[in-house]
Amino acid sequence: MTKKIYEGYNYIEGGVCAAQGFLANGLNCGLNPDKEKNDLGMIYSKAVCNAAAVYTQNKVKGAPITVTKEHLMKSGGKAQAVVVNSKNANTCNADGIEKAETISRLAADCLGIDTSLVINASTGVIGQVLPIEPFEAFMQELTDGLSETGNGKAANAIMTTDTIQKEVAVEFLLGGRTCHLGGMAKGSGMIHPNMATTLNFVTTDVAISTAMIQKALSDIVKVTYNCLSIDGDTSTNDMVSVMANGLAGNDEICTENADYENFKQALYIVMENMTMMLASDGEGASKMLECTVASAPDKETAVIVAKSVIRSPLFKCAMFGEDANWGRILCAIGYAEAEFDIGKVDVDLKSEKGIVAVCRNGAGIDFSEEQAAAVLSADEIYIQIELNQGASEAKAWGCDLTYDYVKINGDYRS
Amino acid sequence: MTKKIYEGYNYIEGGVCAAQGFLANGLNCGLNPDKEKNDLGMIYSKAVCNAAAVYTQNKVKGAPITVTKEHLMKSGGKAQAVVVNSKNANTCNADGIEKAETISRLAADCLGIDTSLVINASTGVIGQVLPIEPFEAFMQELTDGLSETGNGKAANAIMTTDTIQKEVAVEFLLGGRTCHLGGMAKGSGMIHPNMATTLNFVTTDVAISTAMIQKALSDIVKVTYNCLSIDGDTSTNDMVSVMANGLAGNDEICTENADYENFKQALYIVMENMTMMLASDGEGASKMLECTVASAPDKETAVIVAKSVIRSPLFKCAMFGEDANWGRILCAIGYAEAEFDIGKVDVDLKSEKGIVAVCRNGAGIDFSEEQAAAVLSADEIYIQIELNQGASEAKAWGCDLTYDYVKINGDYRS
Repeated sequence: MTKKIYEGYNYIEGGVCAAQGFLANGLNCGLNPDKEKNDLGMIYSKAVCNAAAVYTQNKVKGAPITVTKEHLMKSGGKAQAVVVNSKNANTCNADGIEKAETISRLAADCLGIDTSLVINASTGVIGQVLPIEPFEAFMQELTDGLSETGNGKAANAIMTTDTIQKEVAVEFLLGGRTCHLGGMAKGSGMIHPNMATTLNFVTTDVAISTAMIQKALSDIVKVTYNCLSIDGDTSTNDMVSVMANGLAGNDEICTENADYENFKQALYIVMENMTMMLASDGEGASKMLECTVASAPDKETAVIVAKSVIRSPLFKCAMFGEDANWGRILCAIGYAEAEFDIGKVDVDLKSEKGIVAVCRNGAGIDFSEEQAAAVLSADEIYIQIELNQGASEAKAWGCDLTYDYVKINGDYRS
Repeated sequence: MTKKIYEGYNYIEGGVCAAQGFLANGLNCGLNPDKEKNDLGMIYSKAVCNAAAVYTQNKVKGAPITVTKEHLMKSGGKAQAVVVNSKNANTCNADGIEKAETISRLAADCLGIDTSLVINASTGVIGQVLPIEPFEAFMQELTDGLSETGNGKAANAIMTTDTIQKEVAVEFLLGGRTCHLGGMAKGSGMIHPNMATTLNFVTTDVAISTAMIQKALSDIVKVTYNCLSIDGDTSTNDMVSVMANGLAGNDEICTENADYENFKQALYIVMENMTMMLASDGEGASKMLECTVASAPDKETAVIVAKSVIRSPLFKCAMFGEDANWGRILCAIGYAEAEFDIGKVDVDLKSEKGIVAVCRNGAGIDFSEEQAAAVLSADEIYIQIELNQGASEAKAWGCDLTYDYVKINGDYRS
């Protein structure tokens, strides 16, 4: 996937270990019969972190969501470790909360920290009882193996049917101090039912208050992760957490000052990249789609229109067929639930192969089908929509709808 | 498709010609290169009708929508004929309104009626100029051929990629008078972009005021046609019109009396059947899905939850795979935008092959996979959801998501 360039921010290696003081590990504890695939992961910070999270809006919530919320409330927005498993979502089980609490306590005991400092997450099949024995048997080995280069092992542990490991990190300056912010994500493969669509864990050495992390995260999740649609289904176990240990030594960010804006930009870059990685690796996807809606009357309208296009199955099928079918884009713009004048809308299709204008003032224009076919033959397609009635802009991400999506999700559970 | 039994209402043949005084015809005027397929249709009533319609909510509206609205306003809710073509939607064209007006006038002149009594509709490709010559050349032949048995020819004329012709009619009593109400519909195939998803035309010999027709239609469209989702895309040319010529000789319905309720029930039965026909013939569909949400706190909640399940691509794929994947149903219930307690929800799967309970109180229960596989092997699947927190009920209809859906919509336009 092509990363976008942002001035003042350099991409670096290391994922969740890119920031100072963060260790990670991952191993196979036996939940996954494939011993080559990790199923249990951990992130640990040497210093206690300020931490915040956002969660799924689904009324059906995994037990780890409930337990993590309670921990962050009890600790007053502090955390020091993440323990996460794949293969079983620990959701819709009568003993789910008890199990999530036990897993957190096992991790805390091995690390010598308070249980309330543990963020717990699970992803996998819903409604199957989670065995606790693998956690008891392997928690010590997991913590013993924590290292500054363990990010890849942890990123592997959270993968379900993901075809690529998803990590990104950036380096930037705050008041002369070099800071780092990195993350890992999983998602979009669902051979098993409702394997939590996505989990995202972000770590940073920036010094920032819990309230400011929560504010930045809540703002940015709206324009990145919440603008991602693979199929319109909202999972039961989604979570994005941010842990900040302050080891970069910058003046702690406690208000919306310039440093806050720079931190927020770093968080945006990492979350935008993870969103694009999730879109690229969407179930059965052959193409990553990014839809930009510009010159909108307000941000909300731009978001609604961009998401309407990205979610349209007809549009997604057309992109799979590499068909410059602008009527479907205009149709999806037209049924977006927002107020604007459809008669002013322009649409362009863009990729590394070029750009082609297909619609002006809400009506089709002549274009070269050859040129359009060339543009749409790329793996990453950018749909540029100008509403021409304001100054706001937003993006949404998704992927094409392919035979493989139907195959993956039509297959039997077991 | 299996029709449901309603006491006091008998299914009869005849479609839009089932009601007294209605004639119809259809022919090929050359828009469709396949000469065996009609592309121009007409419905005509010997007496002027009270008439009402509902239209697409898409901001992009076909020219016929605009023109029909104007006609019904100008005539004060009267109509006497429908003229409709397939193959070209007459949408997003600079001269679209002028063309729709010309077609209406050609029909009116041949029939010797006022142009404002003509309902015009088009379905087909968006953004291609509609040639007027075929209408000029064939309108006389179309009107000359109107007959009491022409309903099939008209129903054929509105088909696009529909695989079956869609007609239904019922007979019932109002104050001792035998009344008839019938309709035809098209929809759900979209090899070409945004061929208006559906068109529905209903005719009746009941005597009823325009205001009462509009009221009944607006109520019933909410719980039938608007509860149908093939892929979540809203077309640009959707229209449902009802024409009532009063020839049954019942006392004209002008208030919400018992006769109104009986009329409304007839309209419901015909529109429910057409909705189920559209669902059965959804793009690439191998199964018709009906989701009933009962014991809901209110009707709106029931509708929202039923539509959320029917729209879920993951659920639709599971039905294609004949997989009793209750987790996906619960997930879609959970993200429905309504307030209710997920912990009280029960789910059963039903078909002509039997019934299987899969979820009680929001959690999975043991069930026979063999029995579930047998239930899901049928062509019509009924998902029964009890919210157990009220007395309201609603249904939604759709179809499974199959390889053929992707194939149909991934194909190139031409």
